[in-house]
Amino acid sequence: MIPVHGLPEVGEGHEIAALIAAAVKLQDRDVVVVAHKVVSKAEGRVVRLDDIEPSPQARDLADGEDPRRLEVILRETARLVRTRPPLVIAETRHGFVCASAGVDSSNAPEPNMLVLLPNDPDSSAARLRDRLRELTGTEVAVIVSDSFGRPWRQGTTDVAIGCAGLQPLLDLQDERDATGYELHATVIAVADELAGAAELVRGKLEQIPVAIVRGFRARGEGTAADLVMPPDRDLFR
Amino acid sequence: MIPVHGLPEVGEGHEIAALIAAAVKLQDRDVVVVAHKVVSKAEGRVVRLDDIEPSPQARDLADGEDPRRLEVILRETARLVRTRPPLVIAETRHGFVCASAGVDSSNAPEPNMLVLLPNDPDSSAARLRDRLRELTGTEVAVIVSDSFGRPWRQGTTDVAIGCAGLQPLLDLQDERDATGYELHATVIAVADELAGAAELVRGKLEQIPVAIVRGFRARGEGTAADLVMPPDRDLFR
Repeated sequence: MIPVHGLPEVGEGHEIAALIAAAVKLQDRDVVVVAHKVVSKAEGRVVRLDDIEPSPQARDLADGEDPRRLEVILRETARLVRTRPPLVIAETRHGFVCASAGVDSSNAPEPNMLVLLPNDPDSSAARLRDRLRELTGTEVAVIVSDSFGRPWRQGTTDVAIGCAGLQPLLDLQDERDATGYELHATVIAVADELAGAAELVRGKLEQIPVAIVRGFRARGEGTAADLVMPPDRDLFR
Repeated sequence: MIPVHGLPEVGEGHEIAALIAAAVKLQDRDVVVVAHKVVSKAEGRVVRLDDIEPSPQARDLADGEDPRRLEVILRETARLVRTRPPLVIAETRHGFVCASAGVDSSNAPEPNMLVLLPNDPDSSAARLRDRLRELTGTEVAVIVSDSFGRPWRQGTTDVAIGCAGLQPLLDLQDERDATGYELHATVIAVADELAGAAELVRGKLEQIPVAIVRGFRARGEGTAADLVMPPDRDLFR
């Protein structure tokens, strides 16, 4: 686990791949884990609260907090999953279920700005991977991460919301354990574990948005969309 | 991340601390992550299906699978959260919500045996930590882990079900990010991220039930019970 130090503050139009390539010597098969916030900022996925007119529903949900923030959350929401004003758990257009539909005010460029999730974090990851190959000649995997809460458990863990160059699910269903039994339903969300592991060395307050996982035998190809539970298998819709 | 190779198959009464101390040279502040199955086996938390008489409810839930297995799951269940026979999501006596109340048949000692969660995984972790201190003179943290599924996301990630020598939640609520904003509700479940990171180097099929995380600045003291969402804060009860 290698935290990438020395990255500058990222703004719209900055090329993250070039910043990473300049800051760390990548090796083939590295997994490059990037906090989504720098991806979102580079892609201009930020909004100014001053530009937002809250709807009646946003005012209802605000419960004393800024209704413009709730309006931004509602615009990012495909389906409300739970609400306890001003707390909103929502499904995003990508199919992710998370607090505030991924809208976040910490580490925003300015005090009255909010950072949204990337429009298509899997494409963001794929572009970053391609560009890192061009710049460095290395074949790496890329994970774009965010911090999600979980039902029933306190605290957040970082998970993969974008993925390229790696199958995010390691499927052991057809393999057998040492005693010869089938491992029913053993599918490991390795991309989420990699994102969480990277978070441990990044640290929220230390401005280290990128970490490298070296030595993990990444297999296959896939996207973070593969991590979204299909509705027919989802016991919690 | 250091996988601990060369551990023998663990059975009832075996002393895991001695096996770990013989297999790896521990250092102060190491986080020792132990798959719960070896803890459960050492503590005799296994049941023989031949000894189980299924109840009518277990037969209802079995849906063609072995009703004795469902009976064991129901005995480990404090509250049924979701059922889609034969799939059961249950809250255990510890407050954990997981598939099959943590009852598992993979890596059981014999084909007709099931492995249960430890009775008190936090105490198991604390005893293991104390014994490692006695045997090696090192001050380590211990996490007992299990693989849990998640609503809305495919695949399992390993999480902490027992913890000693480490505060499992890193609370940044009172700290501020680089731009000076408060980080509202930023509490990171580091023990879960450590458990997931360890899973990446352990591997389900390679009989490596223990991994060491070295270099993580573990802080404080706490238990995995701290990770259980209090009912009044739980939007998903």
